[in-house]
Amino acid sequence: MDVAQVLRMNGGDGDYSYSNNSLLQRRVISITKPIIADALTDLYYDLNFPKTLVMADLGCSSGPNTFLVASELVKSIDNIRIKAGHDEPPQIQIYLNDLPHNDFNAIFVSIPEFQKNLTKQKVPGSSSPLCYFSGVPGSFYSRLFLNRSIHFVHSSYSLMWLSQVPEIGKTNKGNIYMSIASPPSVIRAYREQFQADFLTFLKCRAEEMVNRGRMVLTMLGRRSDDPCSKECTYVWDVLAMALNDMVSEGLIDEEKMDSFNIPQYTPCAKEVRNEVEKEGSFEIDCLEVSEASWDAAMDNSLDSFEQDSQGINIGKTIRAVAEPLLLSHFGESMIEEVFVRYPNIIKKQIWKEKTKLINVTISVTRKS
Amino acid sequence: MDVAQVLRMNGGDGDYSYSNNSLLQRRVISITKPIIADALTDLYYDLNFPKTLVMADLGCSSGPNTFLVASELVKSIDNIRIKAGHDEPPQIQIYLNDLPHNDFNAIFVSIPEFQKNLTKQKVPGSSSPLCYFSGVPGSFYSRLFLNRSIHFVHSSYSLMWLSQVPEIGKTNKGNIYMSIASPPSVIRAYREQFQADFLTFLKCRAEEMVNRGRMVLTMLGRRSDDPCSKECTYVWDVLAMALNDMVSEGLIDEEKMDSFNIPQYTPCAKEVRNEVEKEGSFEIDCLEVSEASWDAAMDNSLDSFEQDSQGINIGKTIRAVAEPLLLSHFGESMIEEVFVRYPNIIKKQIWKEKTKLINVTISVTRKS
Repeated sequence: MDVAQVLRMNGGDGDYSYSNNSLLQRRVISITKPIIADALTDLYYDLNFPKTLVMADLGCSSGPNTFLVASELVKSIDNIRIKAGHDEPPQIQIYLNDLPHNDFNAIFVSIPEFQKNLTKQKVPGSSSPLCYFSGVPGSFYSRLFLNRSIHFVHSSYSLMWLSQVPEIGKTNKGNIYMSIASPPSVIRAYREQFQADFLTFLKCRAEEMVNRGRMVLTMLGRRSDDPCSKECTYVWDVLAMALNDMVSEGLIDEEKMDSFNIPQYTPCAKEVRNEVEKEGSFEIDCLEVSEASWDAAMDNSLDSFEQDSQGINIGKTIRAVAEPLLLSHFGESMIEEVFVRYPNIIKKQIWKEKTKLINVTISVTRKS
Repeated sequence: MDVAQVLRMNGGDGDYSYSNNSLLQRRVISITKPIIADALTDLYYDLNFPKTLVMADLGCSSGPNTFLVASELVKSIDNIRIKAGHDEPPQIQIYLNDLPHNDFNAIFVSIPEFQKNLTKQKVPGSSSPLCYFSGVPGSFYSRLFLNRSIHFVHSSYSLMWLSQVPEIGKTNKGNIYMSIASPPSVIRAYREQFQADFLTFLKCRAEEMVNRGRMVLTMLGRRSDDPCSKECTYVWDVLAMALNDMVSEGLIDEEKMDSFNIPQYTPCAKEVRNEVEKEGSFEIDCLEVSEASWDAAMDNSLDSFEQDSQGINIGKTIRAVAEPLLLSHFGESMIEEVFVRYPNIIKKQIWKEKTKLINVTISVTRKS
């Protein structure tokens, strides 16, 4: 089973992965909403008020967020239509994509309820629903749709996941991610894996999208040029400390630890721009960096921020993301112990600043 | 929960519903294969060798048969292409539809394996897969797709299921289906429900299909004009006998029994033709009646036919189909007892002929 598959297997269990964390995702959507609205407006006018629109949400996960995005897309198109003075809303096809092990059943049983809420927006006298849903299982690092069939692509908090752990063998001893202590070859392998994956992603979408189609992608990223910058490695460094402690206490096999690495790369805006320019099929309309507090992932009490609760919050989110990877690599017995240690390490850390999640959002147009 | 939903909830549990019975479905596909091939050939030439084809399998269920149909469609198109002397296979989008409670997860995890087998047919040098899959949850008695977006529609062993039990209250006392003992109002209500449902089905597909699109539908039907003909009521009459016996022994509540009816209508060819002509959007290319032995549903030993095994085979298939309906209406406690009685009643019946399943297949073209 490939790593990304392991990662997404927890999709159905609630507020777990980054993209499945309701509060965090709501915050991200509210940040990217104007960018999505601009892209959809341009698309709608460019296509001369089309009667049908085909959209894809890549890495949709399963849970409340799946419909958060769909709902935003439909509402946004409806606002644009009303402003443009058009009576009839376009019919919208929304493809919900994630890996085959995502819990599509959970999504599908919620669709009738979502459709019912949408009919409030329906034009009287029209018998067609506003929105048709369909589930598309598969990796977005491969082709998912027919040639030239998609008008709008959206993806949020998914593209920082690589298609696989870079081929670094056991050369990253003591670390589980790009760390300040990692050899340059490890950093290079991670960067090259991201570049290869993102290039594949862009090539596939270029084939699938219509001329002048729009795409808005948000991924976890960083402000710094340095891929070992604390802003993106901190949460994994803490996990590495917990695991290393357990190795030294004989609770985890050292050999196992040496071959464990996280298949994630959080690019800076420049790297995202570079790959888009290198691939060549898309014009960049907008490239933005925004931030969300880790606390936004867990509760809304940003004013009553405390180091303790930050540790617990980060621990919970990282557990949700890392647990399937840890389980498949180390087995079940060590999980509880790792995440007892995690918040305690954060508490002891000297790095007292608020830890932020950095988001890189890019909005592009498919060249004609 | 509507009745059809209850019916389909057993979709994921193996060889259960009519459409999910591998052997039976294989038999039906082999009977309808030439009709499907003719329709696809006409479509392929009519559309002037299109680069993409969009197909929908309605009531796909989940299990081995889901891919049996998809595989036949892809193979068929490939044969037609080779005969036509075209080098490049069209890209095919296959929409797999069933009710939202169908086990789409089970289908989706099997797609990569199916895709891998398909690549054997792929043209060297082409990076695109032959076939894109997507799951579409929803009742086919409603709109499922964008206007004018589908080239080919297939449905096998699903359209005899009504959208609901006809509104007959308790007027069908002692029976659970149209029976020779049912009052004329019950027969009328069943017929009208079928007509209304099938008309809705045709109207929806007419909106969704492209001009000159093709549709091949196979449903359980009958040869006789009489909807109470034994050929289609027999299996339900036996179930009614088992239930009535249990009512008289106090094992089932009589009130409950009076309000239990099976939401199925097995039309004759003439009724199917009538509805298609009444709706008016489709030309009929072919309308055929075929038959399959009930034994084909369970094993291939048709020569060593025995009354006993027929009873057991019919009982197993009917249990698979009726169990979710019985469970939701009567509760769990009576199930085992009903299906102990079922084959015994068949054995004692004086009707000693081989019981056949009658299939009505219609192939139509969307008028321009």
